Amino acid sequence: MTKLATRERLLRAAADLFYAEGVGAVGVERLCRAAGVSKRSMYQLFETKDDVVAAALQEFGPAAVAGYFPAEDMEMPPGERILHVFARLEERAGQASFHGCPFVNTAIELHDPGHRASAVALHFKKALEVYFERQARQLSVPHPELLAAQLTVLFDGCAVRAVMRDEPLHGLAVRTAAMLLQGAALPRT
Amino acid sequence: MTKLATRERLLRAAADLFYAEGVGAVGVERLCRAAGVSKRSMYQLFETKDDVVAAALQEFGPAAVAGYFPAEDMEMPPGERILHVFARLEERAGQASFHGCPFVNTAIELHDPGHRASAVALHFKKALEVYFERQARQLSVPHPELLAAQLTVLFDGCAVRAVMRDEPLHGLAVRTAAMLLQGAALPRT
Repeated sequence: MTKLATRERLLRAAADLFYAEGVGAVGVERLCRAAGVSKRSMYQLFETKDDVVAAALQEFGPAAVAGYFPAEDMEMPPGERILHVFARLEERAGQASFHGCPFVNTAIELHDPGHRASAVALHFKKALEVYFERQARQLSVPHPELLAAQLTVLFDGCAVRAVMRDEPLHGLAVRTAAMLLQGAALPRT
Repeated sequence: MTKLATRERLLRAAADLFYAEGVGAVGVERLCRAAGVSKRSMYQLFETKDDVVAAALQEFGPAAVAGYFPAEDMEMPPGERILHVFARLEERAGQASFHGCPFVNTAIELHDPGHRASAVALHFKKALEVYFERQARQLSVPHPELLAAQLTVLFDGCAVRAVMRDEPLHGLAVRTAAMLLQGAALPRT
């Protein structure tokens, strides 16, 4: 197996296992077994498990974020582009494979904003907020950066809710996003 | 040391350490050392570490929730009672000792809604929502349970944000809560 193939299998297994069971719950032994990779091969590629955690998030982060966005070339007004994210969240929160937001989970679990993986997690969380802000600017609301931050905390709060209650969101995410959009257009008091 | 004193020291140390560093990061060895309790004494009181996690959350959960509420006997209109919670969150999110919501953290970290501690965490999370709903009913908004759910996801999303960014909320929590309150009073579309 080439180094590249080993790396790929390792990171794929890491991303899946860490997402499903948590970073702390999955040890190097188990990870390597699941990936079908020897520990020796793993340590030739990564110095520590922490490096694997960060690399797996880095590798699969873009797809995790993009999964919530409509296709770039799809004709869709900005407000709907925002609501699309929450409709996807509602959909995913209803699936057994949903375990919340991988970035939130990793950051919460590590309890260390200085950890490399926490920095990667924050990077992708900000990518969501940047997306919201871009749409908000096109809507010409008075405070696009405020709306973007509100939508981001709504997203994270809803993901946490679905995990904690182990149930779908029953429309809460989309409904609240629509209210925030409506509220953003009102003159600020 | 009486069994009760041992239990108290153990749970106090557990609540503090798990909150500051995470449930997975703190082993039994370390926990007992911090509590000044022998492992033998711990296992006389609790069968497993999981039981300690659940018991610590159960023991200190009420204080954690109540810390966000205004005093019961304080004269305060319901809308302000709601905003008080978010003002407290803003305040706490700016402190170095803030590591987010202990209930969210525990549930996220355990990755298992069937875990006893996850059930305890959900119980206290619902206590916050019940509080919001009680105030919302007094406000006579059309859908008090919706507003309560929205405020709860706002709370959790903001707590997550402060942890991930390692910075205060800069008014986001209070401002958004006020907007949701305002929006809840509008006739639903």
